Amino acid sequence: MGFLSAFVCVALASGAFAQAAFPDCVSGPLATTTVCDITANPVDRAAALVSLFTFDEKVNNTGNTSPGVPRLGLPAYQWWQEGLHGVAESPGVYFAESGPFSYATSFPQPILMSAAFDDPMIYNIATVISTEARGFNNNNRSGLDFWTPNINPFKDPRWGRGQETPGEDPFHLQSYVYNLITGLQGGLDPEYKRIVATCKHFAAYDLENWMGNVRYGFDAIVSIQDLSEFYTRSFRTCARDANVGAFMCSYNAVNGVPSCANSYLLQDILREHWGWTNEDQWVTSDCDAIENIYQPHYYAPTRQLTVADALNAGADLDCGEYYPLNLGSAYEEGLFNVSTLDRALIRLYSSLVKLGYFDPAENQPYRSIGWENVSTPAAEELAYTAAVEGITLLKNDGTLPLSSSIKSIALIGPWANATTEMQGNYYGVAPYLISPLMAAEAAGYTVYYATGPGIDDPTTSSFPAAFEAAAAADAIIYAGGINTDVEAEGMDRYTLDWPGVQIDLIDSLSQFGKPFVVLQMGGGQVDDSCMIPNAGVNAIIWGGYPGQSGGTALIDIIMGKVAPAGRLPITQYPIGYVYQIPMTDMSLRPSATSPGRTYMWYTGTPVFPFGYGLHYTNFTASLSESSASSYDISTLVSGCSGYEHLDLCPFASYTVNVTNTGNSVSSDFVALLFVAGEHGPAPVPNKVLAAYSRLHSVAPLSSQTTTLNLTLGSLARADSYGNTILYPGEYDLVLDVDAKSTVSFSLTGNESVLDYWPQPTA
Amino acid sequence: MGFLSAFVCVALASGAFAQAAFPDCVSGPLATTTVCDITANPVDRAAALVSLFTFDEKVNNTGNTSPGVPRLGLPAYQWWQEGLHGVAESPGVYFAESGPFSYATSFPQPILMSAAFDDPMIYNIATVISTEARGFNNNNRSGLDFWTPNINPFKDPRWGRGQETPGEDPFHLQSYVYNLITGLQGGLDPEYKRIVATCKHFAAYDLENWMGNVRYGFDAIVSIQDLSEFYTRSFRTCARDANVGAFMCSYNAVNGVPSCANSYLLQDILREHWGWTNEDQWVTSDCDAIENIYQPHYYAPTRQLTVADALNAGADLDCGEYYPLNLGSAYEEGLFNVSTLDRALIRLYSSLVKLGYFDPAENQPYRSIGWENVSTPAAEELAYTAAVEGITLLKNDGTLPLSSSIKSIALIGPWANATTEMQGNYYGVAPYLISPLMAAEAAGYTVYYATGPGIDDPTTSSFPAAFEAAAAADAIIYAGGINTDVEAEGMDRYTLDWPGVQIDLIDSLSQFGKPFVVLQMGGGQVDDSCMIPNAGVNAIIWGGYPGQSGGTALIDIIMGKVAPAGRLPITQYPIGYVYQIPMTDMSLRPSATSPGRTYMWYTGTPVFPFGYGLHYTNFTASLSESSASSYDISTLVSGCSGYEHLDLCPFASYTVNVTNTGNSVSSDFVALLFVAGEHGPAPVPNKVLAAYSRLHSVAPLSSQTTTLNLTLGSLARADSYGNTILYPGEYDLVLDVDAKSTVSFSLTGNESVLDYWPQPTA
Repeated sequence: MGFLSAFVCVALASGAFAQAAFPDCVSGPLATTTVCDITANPVDRAAALVSLFTFDEKVNNTGNTSPGVPRLGLPAYQWWQEGLHGVAESPGVYFAESGPFSYATSFPQPILMSAAFDDPMIYNIATVISTEARGFNNNNRSGLDFWTPNINPFKDPRWGRGQETPGEDPFHLQSYVYNLITGLQGGLDPEYKRIVATCKHFAAYDLENWMGNVRYGFDAIVSIQDLSEFYTRSFRTCARDANVGAFMCSYNAVNGVPSCANSYLLQDILREHWGWTNEDQWVTSDCDAIENIYQPHYYAPTRQLTVADALNAGADLDCGEYYPLNLGSAYEEGLFNVSTLDRALIRLYSSLVKLGYFDPAENQPYRSIGWENVSTPAAEELAYTAAVEGITLLKNDGTLPLSSSIKSIALIGPWANATTEMQGNYYGVAPYLISPLMAAEAAGYTVYYATGPGIDDPTTSSFPAAFEAAAAADAIIYAGGINTDVEAEGMDRYTLDWPGVQIDLIDSLSQFGKPFVVLQMGGGQVDDSCMIPNAGVNAIIWGGYPGQSGGTALIDIIMGKVAPAGRLPITQYPIGYVYQIPMTDMSLRPSATSPGRTYMWYTGTPVFPFGYGLHYTNFTASLSESSASSYDISTLVSGCSGYEHLDLCPFASYTVNVTNTGNSVSSDFVALLFVAGEHGPAPVPNKVLAAYSRLHSVAPLSSQTTTLNLTLGSLARADSYGNTILYPGEYDLVLDVDAKSTVSFSLTGNESVLDYWPQPTA
Repeated sequence: MGFLSAFVCVALASGAFAQAAFPDCVSGPLATTTVCDITANPVDRAAALVSLFTFDEKVNNTGNTSPGVPRLGLPAYQWWQEGLHGVAESPGVYFAESGPFSYATSFPQPILMSAAFDDPMIYNIATVISTEARGFNNNNRSGLDFWTPNINPFKDPRWGRGQETPGEDPFHLQSYVYNLITGLQGGLDPEYKRIVATCKHFAAYDLENWMGNVRYGFDAIVSIQDLSEFYTRSFRTCARDANVGAFMCSYNAVNGVPSCANSYLLQDILREHWGWTNEDQWVTSDCDAIENIYQPHYYAPTRQLTVADALNAGADLDCGEYYPLNLGSAYEEGLFNVSTLDRALIRLYSSLVKLGYFDPAENQPYRSIGWENVSTPAAEELAYTAAVEGITLLKNDGTLPLSSSIKSIALIGPWANATTEMQGNYYGVAPYLISPLMAAEAAGYTVYYATGPGIDDPTTSSFPAAFEAAAAADAIIYAGGINTDVEAEGMDRYTLDWPGVQIDLIDSLSQFGKPFVVLQMGGGQVDDSCMIPNAGVNAIIWGGYPGQSGGTALIDIIMGKVAPAGRLPITQYPIGYVYQIPMTDMSLRPSATSPGRTYMWYTGTPVFPFGYGLHYTNFTASLSESSASSYDISTLVSGCSGYEHLDLCPFASYTVNVTNTGNSVSSDFVALLFVAGEHGPAPVPNKVLAAYSRLHSVAPLSSQTTTLNLTLGSLARADSYGNTILYPGEYDLVLDVDAKSTVSFSLTGNESVLDYWPQPTA
């Protein structure tokens, strides 16, 4: 058996302290070199370090598991950390078995956090995550760069990783990710970054494995119009506006070129057009996406051409082995210049410099963060709040909140006692995981618990126990839907059905004539339409993946301790939708072969629309009038001289006045403002989200106001070349999904290009 | 938490002895009733028992977990045992933690056993399984009926459960299953059955979950011609010829009617046409297939109509809860007669009578079987032999068997140290599981082992270790392919690719310039075409799921201790095949939208054809001449007066003379005889397997003969009504895949119907 590579042995042997300590800039070999000179600028410091490497040492450090350079005292560094909704299990993160650093705060999955439509909360959460990450790093339990967020739009309801994203709307993604990244990194351009965030997966990645189309080899055929206005809007925010430290190129190809070998994406759009040119900004491949260029893309005929294509295109780091294994022979074949390799390494090490990796601890704001800053009471409260704010009420006939006369509940279903499942994917060890069952018992209910069928269980063997539980209780709660058994990395769905026999059980339970609440859990939506007309299903709540305090959040809402105000960040499509368009069709606009994608373009009737969500009280809301009924485009644009990016130039601010007309329940309210109307190239979208704000605790019979700011970009659309253009035409600002208030105006004069999109070379 | 149904508690509490003891026919309440009267006939005994039940007691005993009737001293009985390739984990089987009955012999998966084309061996294996089952039963560790075999043809290479079957050829299935069932049951009509076997899944079941088409709700649209000549041929053998004790109706619908509510299948074809009318023969539903009639088939509008439809159609037992939960209310609605319920129960209890369940132990041949009869040396030897006989050599440039000068091997890949994986699915606890790695070490090789990537692992992190192993060894063996991670119950494949990065690794290993053998494991085939022209891949072996001694069998073949002679029981299609025909298309014949299915109808070029397999020596083989060049059909048929079933009437016997022309290796040889030629309705199949026989240990430079018997059915074809007809025309008997010998003759005169197929009512 005798054989294990030294490489593997290192990885296995480490255990408790796998991330090496910081470089020794006091007495190590590097101490007297420029990289340790805190007065030098970061690029010069990184360049000085790389100049000390032999060629082989350079090549050795192009993979995510970087061995460092022992002879120079440069420690090994694992570039791969995950932190999607809290410090997460990943190659570079090491949770302790017990005691300090054995857990970290575990927030809800992004799909649920996004349903809160509360960007200040997202910023606060990101700050907690980066604080806890620093605590881990300071104790050699994590690196300093994290491969989060997943900011691809959740375009197709079948996508297994949609749960990781903030939903389907590009504006929502932009606003969310701006707050997330500035929270993770500690501002726009801090002297020391808190951590480096990584916007992934660039670009047009939203398919795992559908009908033999596997992400590793899928070629996404995307119109330039869709690429500009839909697939890359959130990435533009990352690069141009939020100054994110890293990007990840995706597995798929875009229009024939694998993303990690795609200089149009990585150079023309990302670096040149968006000005993402700081020397500490780098691109990593998704894991083994470099190998995938060779196969299954079969884009380059040899392994040497493969790695050279990727390096030359601008993929600086290989999550994988292909760079370390093949760059040497590629260089011997003359396929790249060593300056290109140096550039990649200088970017990577510059980012470590900016993270304080080579600096004295005492100079830095984050090196003193310790275990006492992890999982603080405030962080745990925030995890609970995030769940409460995101949970969305989809149906309620008045049964919720439950009457105080209800003393016992039957809690039935595969999510009833969910713990780790509440974390979705890319999660870490939570300080605790409070299931609905635990929360219901803690709330004082007598609980009759029955597991019900598994999520995808086709058998009815669980029915007798469920029926006995239902018969015994005052009220019934069914907690099911989907989980990572059916929506996961590598696994798209093929249907929007409730899996297994759940619908049969729900229907049976609805016949008990007792108050009956259905909790629809999971990230992607399932079709609830059979429950809407069923008077025996009194209420439906969508709970996503609610994180460590998910059970408490759900039960508190059910009992009325807190009021729900979340809004669906995605469309709930009817079952038939997935048979109307193949997952591989990337087009947004409706056509003869497509009903259209997202609430912006879908021509059918959704089960529940994007932005939908009920309350325990009633709200009215009104929008302030426009300053004018018509605006001249050239006048608007000429007023933007101070703005480098015209789409960010302000157009107008609107005041939203929200009144809680109920007399008993205080409740949050999310103000959503859409732009609709006939303007720009046909077809025109149904409407487009342009601004939102969450009002907190609007008291009964009282009002609050909020201001929604629109920019010229809020009104612009993309032409077929991807240019962002302000068009003359009619504009309607529509408040909320049910159009509580509408303001109309027109733009006049000639169209004006706010942004010229780089064109692909033929 | 307080609540668990009594039902569940019983199931959980049982632990070590879950199957109840036999009924007390000596001093229990039943002792003086007819069911305990061994002089009465079995049906009367069962009827007498059922007559003692109240209506509720009858309903309670219609599910697989039968509670019995405590007041009558009738013990609980679990009807659900599995035994696909050995006594297997299942609700009614209880392996001990250690010591006696902690394991049972675990044979290869049927797909590999079938590759042996050795029916006497199958009979012997079935006898071992039923012997061991009796041992378990005698110790209250198993019931007496087993839900095996899965005898649906493996029509589509994507099918996740194809591994459970003997392949794609209907004749092969018939011959295999006849031997299997007579082995399991102990003959055709024994006084006491060894066990009851269950032919499943009736009918046209060969799809798990493809593109949202889920087995539970799939409606298989099958022509009557295909239903007769392809999908039900093996089931005819079960019912008409082998006298199997039980059938299982399948999840899917056939032509609009769910199989378990399908009286055309269960009554017209199974019971009436095939004469499967013994009172101890019963039909169980697949598990929760009754519920599936309600949903997702939505075939019956209420649960009451659902259970009544199934019971009236002839599904006697519900694997599930729907009968026990809903037959009572269905009866109140007048939806079935109690005589129908009685009939179902009498069938079930009659089978237990025929198994000796109510009889004194001392009267019976099988009640003395004990632990000493389980996992005997002969049984373990047979498990090894079955693996050796099935393993199939697909490519060999002379590198195999390995030269004795090779002292060290690099053993690389996800199957290299496979243990439980060698059992596939529906397996029990094996006495031992010898992986290729264990076997290679035991054989004295210095082994450099590297796990390689997981089957579906998309990352290259395993490559460096694999390359180090390869560099260190004299020869390289890669063991991979697929396993139950990608082909499984509930999971069809979407591609025929080698999953993950395996091909990249194999290609890299082929460049080491060392002897390199690829083991292609798993049940369904993957496309090996890229390895065939690669001179760096010296040999390819298909190893299926080889069971407990699989590693030893593989290494013994690689070393030349034994010689391979298996033949592919399925076609190895090229990758593009799955894009040419949807899995849901049940048609066999080629058309504008289909390249045709199975070797009989496929119009493309397979990578390796059905029946393909190489040897370590060379063989010639010749077929004896026909007695005539032409036969008159009416004369042939008129000579069949003694035959109830004309298709079984002998046509002719042919002698095959096989010569091992090599001078060093003794080897088995499988003689396959196909029928081809222009006869019967267009289109005509490429060829059809009509007989086979395995010759054992043909010595170097010597010959053996075997006799292949053809019946009229061997020559017949089905018309569009499903009638089996002997047609005038040209007939070619073709020996082996490469046509080592051909005999031609013609049939003259008018066509003659050998069997009239029952027609569905409109």
